[in-house]
Amino acid sequence: MHADRVRGLWVATLTPIDGAGQIDAARLAQHCRALLMAGCDGVTLFGTTGEGQSFSVAERIAALDAVLAAGIAPERVVVGTGATALPDAVELTRHAVRCDVAATLLLPPFYFKDVADAGVVAAVGNVVEAAGDPGVRIFLYHIPSMSAVPISPAAAAELRRRYGPAIAGIKDSSLDWATFARFRAHLPDLAILVGDETLLVRALNEGGAGTICGLSNVAPALIRALCDRRGAAETAKSQREIERLVKLFAGRPFVATLKTIMAEISGDPTWLAVRAPLVAASEAERRAIVEAWRGLSRVAA
Amino acid sequence: MHADRVRGLWVATLTPIDGAGQIDAARLAQHCRALLMAGCDGVTLFGTTGEGQSFSVAERIAALDAVLAAGIAPERVVVGTGATALPDAVELTRHAVRCDVAATLLLPPFYFKDVADAGVVAAVGNVVEAAGDPGVRIFLYHIPSMSAVPISPAAAAELRRRYGPAIAGIKDSSLDWATFARFRAHLPDLAILVGDETLLVRALNEGGAGTICGLSNVAPALIRALCDRRGAAETAKSQREIERLVKLFAGRPFVATLKTIMAEISGDPTWLAVRAPLVAASEAERRAIVEAWRGLSRVAA
Repeated sequence: MHADRVRGLWVATLTPIDGAGQIDAARLAQHCRALLMAGCDGVTLFGTTGEGQSFSVAERIAALDAVLAAGIAPERVVVGTGATALPDAVELTRHAVRCDVAATLLLPPFYFKDVADAGVVAAVGNVVEAAGDPGVRIFLYHIPSMSAVPISPAAAAELRRRYGPAIAGIKDSSLDWATFARFRAHLPDLAILVGDETLLVRALNEGGAGTICGLSNVAPALIRALCDRRGAAETAKSQREIERLVKLFAGRPFVATLKTIMAEISGDPTWLAVRAPLVAASEAERRAIVEAWRGLSRVAA
Repeated sequence: MHADRVRGLWVATLTPIDGAGQIDAARLAQHCRALLMAGCDGVTLFGTTGEGQSFSVAERIAALDAVLAAGIAPERVVVGTGATALPDAVELTRHAVRCDVAATLLLPPFYFKDVADAGVVAAVGNVVEAAGDPGVRIFLYHIPSMSAVPISPAAAAELRRRYGPAIAGIKDSSLDWATFARFRAHLPDLAILVGDETLLVRALNEGGAGTICGLSNVAPALIRALCDRRGAAETAKSQREIERLVKLFAGRPFVATLKTIMAEISGDPTWLAVRAPLVAASEAERRAIVEAWRGLSRVAA
């Protein structure tokens, strides 16, 4: 695998859904290609923005195969492999290894709450050992707002101690600066990528490796500018723009809102569909989102 | 299916795990048989106590097949079919229908949080419709401490309105009397089974249908006595005993503690094993649990 490639701007890619409620793999591959052409360093399939947990193991495997068959380079793909059942996470990880993608993004099992660090370490360790390949490269996925099972710095450090380079980094979706700072301080050898676009510049300045983020689906150029930090004035302007864009999402469901913008940008209403338990934006919400988006037109440039 | 059978005492059955970390289906069937012989009305496989979310679809299907092949009557079995991915819940539901078990126990998809009622209704509706059989019978599983996605009375009522007898009841694991009372008031036609053993007598007195509970794995006679309510003095004594037993679990992880007691009762250390992310009790914890259990010896009678 190619974990060293997972630096800079990686898109937490939306998953398009066709009229039959199935993953539209052709549109997904097309979207990945467009994002790479727009300057993104890579794409991440089946994270939270990609509704990963809403798709079965078979669906996730078939979609990754289709995206690679469509010509997306595997070293520019990270794939989410988390599941509540370890055999599922193992199967997805083995497939990712066979595909030789850049790395996997692994949620800890998240049904049980109040899980001990020892349980998180045992679960991730089971996946590393069962992957059956010394080349496996894993990013631990810390997103307590959804999983409610955090990756503690202590658990991550223990995993790194046991498994070395197989534990390549952390996607920190805490949306919290103090958490990022703790990961950096405790895990100097790991690549820490933030999920919060507004923290990206600060994180890069403090040794962060980049971002895996959702807003790059619709504003890749803006996130690219934040990553590249070309001069103080330009960067400050980009920072103001990302903060305005993030505000559009306040009080709105993230994935449905992002898909509504994607449909507007692409002129393709296929993007509006989400899989239950998510709910697509109502007609009224859609109009409000599109209006707010158009008001931020400079962001879309 | 046989939802009318799901009344009284149904065990949220523990899942034994063998030395290779796999479901020990022979021991599971033996445990189910012992529980039915001890006076339980039925068994529920792959709820929270049964670590259901820790096993893959294939593991859950194979274990149910093995339990039925071992001679457990399907009408005395409820099976947990919830999953974050609807195709998995559909596959498990179709299998349960083919097996003609009493009913299914369905968690809503639980990865995304702050899910709208419309999303829960769409998700459950998808499972009902895709089950492909008008005889499907579903108990909705309300356990916000784990799922963080509640079943609201309004969502349950809407599902009942749309799907009639396919929505047979609710397992209320809120551990909260007010929630039970709300379900009863809003859903007079549904069978409400409580997860909290200490609320069982009160719930039965107020029109509840019974319980699906974990402690009946180790104290079936006591829970049977609570269900049967043979006279005020006897019932009050049983109530005191269940409250003492519940106290043993305070501050201890539920499944590992229950399995420790199960190992003590059966003399079979196989029961100690849990699957990650759960962690088996340490030697010191085990001794403390066994000592506390022996102190409650009358409960075990």
